[in-house]
Amino acid sequence: MNIVDILAKKRDAQALTADEIAFLVKGAVDGSIADYQVTAFLMAGRIHGFTKEETLALTMEMAHSGEMIDLSDVEGIKVDKHSTGGVGDKTSLILLPIIAAAGLKGAKMSGRGLGHTGGTLDKLASIPGFRCDLAIDTFKEQVRKTGLSIISQTDGLVPADKLFYALRDVTATVDSIPLITASIMSKKLAMGADVLVLDVKYGSGALIKDEQESRMLGEMMVEVAKGTGMKAAAMLTSMEQPLGMAVGNALEVKEVLDVLHGEGPQDLREVAFAIAAEMMLLAGLKQNRAEARAYAAEIVQSGAALQKFEQMVLAQGGSTEFDSLPVAEQIIPLCAEKAGYIGSFDTAAIGHAAMLLGAGRRKKTDSIDPATGLIVPVKLGDRVTAEQPLAYLHINNTENLQDACRMLKEAICIQEDVPQKTAPLILDIIN
Amino acid sequence: MNIVDILAKKRDAQALTADEIAFLVKGAVDGSIADYQVTAFLMAGRIHGFTKEETLALTMEMAHSGEMIDLSDVEGIKVDKHSTGGVGDKTSLILLPIIAAAGLKGAKMSGRGLGHTGGTLDKLASIPGFRCDLAIDTFKEQVRKTGLSIISQTDGLVPADKLFYALRDVTATVDSIPLITASIMSKKLAMGADVLVLDVKYGSGALIKDEQESRMLGEMMVEVAKGTGMKAAAMLTSMEQPLGMAVGNALEVKEVLDVLHGEGPQDLREVAFAIAAEMMLLAGLKQNRAEARAYAAEIVQSGAALQKFEQMVLAQGGSTEFDSLPVAEQIIPLCAEKAGYIGSFDTAAIGHAAMLLGAGRRKKTDSIDPATGLIVPVKLGDRVTAEQPLAYLHINNTENLQDACRMLKEAICIQEDVPQKTAPLILDIIN
Repeated sequence: MNIVDILAKKRDAQALTADEIAFLVKGAVDGSIADYQVTAFLMAGRIHGFTKEETLALTMEMAHSGEMIDLSDVEGIKVDKHSTGGVGDKTSLILLPIIAAAGLKGAKMSGRGLGHTGGTLDKLASIPGFRCDLAIDTFKEQVRKTGLSIISQTDGLVPADKLFYALRDVTATVDSIPLITASIMSKKLAMGADVLVLDVKYGSGALIKDEQESRMLGEMMVEVAKGTGMKAAAMLTSMEQPLGMAVGNALEVKEVLDVLHGEGPQDLREVAFAIAAEMMLLAGLKQNRAEARAYAAEIVQSGAALQKFEQMVLAQGGSTEFDSLPVAEQIIPLCAEKAGYIGSFDTAAIGHAAMLLGAGRRKKTDSIDPATGLIVPVKLGDRVTAEQPLAYLHINNTENLQDACRMLKEAICIQEDVPQKTAPLILDIIN
Repeated sequence: MNIVDILAKKRDAQALTADEIAFLVKGAVDGSIADYQVTAFLMAGRIHGFTKEETLALTMEMAHSGEMIDLSDVEGIKVDKHSTGGVGDKTSLILLPIIAAAGLKGAKMSGRGLGHTGGTLDKLASIPGFRCDLAIDTFKEQVRKTGLSIISQTDGLVPADKLFYALRDVTATVDSIPLITASIMSKKLAMGADVLVLDVKYGSGALIKDEQESRMLGEMMVEVAKGTGMKAAAMLTSMEQPLGMAVGNALEVKEVLDVLHGEGPQDLREVAFAIAAEMMLLAGLKQNRAEARAYAAEIVQSGAALQKFEQMVLAQGGSTEFDSLPVAEQIIPLCAEKAGYIGSFDTAAIGHAAMLLGAGRRKKTDSIDPATGLIVPVKLGDRVTAEQPLAYLHINNTENLQDACRMLKEAICIQEDVPQKTAPLILDIIN
């Protein structure tokens, strides 16, 4: 087998065999195939696409390019979750406690956030003392005992994805649905859970804004998951506005606690409960979706989910004295300049504004200020009066305040007419 | 300007601006754009193609990526020639002496051959003492005095082409007509001649076998040449069989001397005279093609071309005691196994067989045995009897003899029926 012949096939839009894909992935990782050959492959694939069979083979081969986590010695049904990323998306911190309380095992590795706002690990890191860098054995032991753990991705997991992703990022080959599928699913496959729910975002704050493309990504990921023997579903959920009201790490943890106390924003509750319910259905714990969702809400109402969350925090070294979560020095309201209706959000710009305040990082080496961020109390279709606060900026310095305010004013559009019906929060469930 | 945005444009089949192409070429050469970004560009370009404007911009920018030869202080009309490469193609050694004798200036840089048989430099190197590594000033002085010189390409010429070609070779992006055009034409542009004739080969021994694609390459090169202000024409000539009878370095020089003495194979004479005539037309020396070709033949017949050839050889340190050209130890005839007609040649395989005997190099570091090679005395359509020699193998050892014989037997097809009319030797002239 010869890499130039493989590149010629892909260049000519022919499907590669599983053996050819294996040769390519192995060679890329061991260095016998050069980066400049890998990018020629990625560009040809980005242009011509990949068949389902190619995508499955690529996913499998990437998953096996490094360490594979073996959860077989953890009793019970292991459940994993992935979100394609959104603004204010903190559902993992709600739904893992719910399904752990329901008797499933929530075992999740997470990355740090880049662009937009912080990732799940950044949110947890705002809890004083919380550690994400557990050894695998410690992680498994915690899942066994408490039913849930969220840790950072280990270095040895899916080296092929690290390599491919770094090259895609600098060669305009990121936005390929099969390559995104292989990137996400290879990590999920290496994680070794039994059940996986994918939260695929669409709309102005999503990685893939277009509804149809998001659906294609959801379908392809579910197909690949099934091809590897996992039970999986994908939910298409709206990112036309932030999920919940809080955008920023400690602010989001507080909102999570609100939900776990039976309160909190309705949209956030709905998505978190729906994902938890889908996990219960896939795990065979419930047969009926409405019933499963009601059960998720019950678990929260009973305080059992909050208890699981606190168990996880304690097990990972964090303090459950949540009053000690970091708080910003100043809260600046940003008010509407005219009366009207909230017509649309540029949700990505809201995430960007939060990043400017210190809630996210532009590049890997930037540090995050866990106390900073935004509360956006308005939702699409809301009637607002002039001077009504559209957002509260939680800040520790005024460095980027002007820029963030300008960005937010542009990102939250007020119109005179009553808006058309907005995009559904949960557009569809693919399984 | 940003390389990722440029790659995204090319990925989406949008035409790049001249500025974007300049940014890419400059960055590739100075290292600010990585090889893995260059190959993503090459693959996207190979798949989607390039507009005429893009190809011209790429050619110009590549030409200016390194040293530019300035021939303005050499009086007269400077003439250059390029062949896309063929088996037995030794026309440069005939036509440059002709046009020098006609008063034009033949100034040519040449590469060493890879694959197939030797390049022009390898042929000249079979002449004892001949040197191709002249300094530019010495080269120009020789062109001034004798009217012609052929030297090896200097290291500083078109570094962008060296870089791109090395990357294309290992990423299945060689066979792109615009990229081939930019590669050839950037070197010709850096060479700075006034008149250029391109010999674009088609058929079984050509780089581009397909007649239509060869035509496209010829058209694109002529268009780019004109865009840069050069006077240019392209001739489409047949590589359905070797040109002349000799394939191998000293053997080819001997055949050149035959032609310069007014003899030699008819097909070789025809192509060499036609190219020389085209140069005279472009230079304004003659107005009529038939007249120009007759004039080229006259110059040969008069001995003036031979004299120019000898002047060049002497000026470059070579011996004109041509009896001292290297000779192989053994000549082995390969005979027809049946009577019939020569129906077709696999011309590339004939070149490959000659390479096996030592006349060419598989990789850059291989050495050439100038005495070895083939004489193929038969032509398409010839009637042959059983036992009639189809080829004579000139060898210094029997190492690859069996393989070469097997390859030749397969490459020269004998059929019972009189063959259909063969492809024309000179298919077309594009100007």
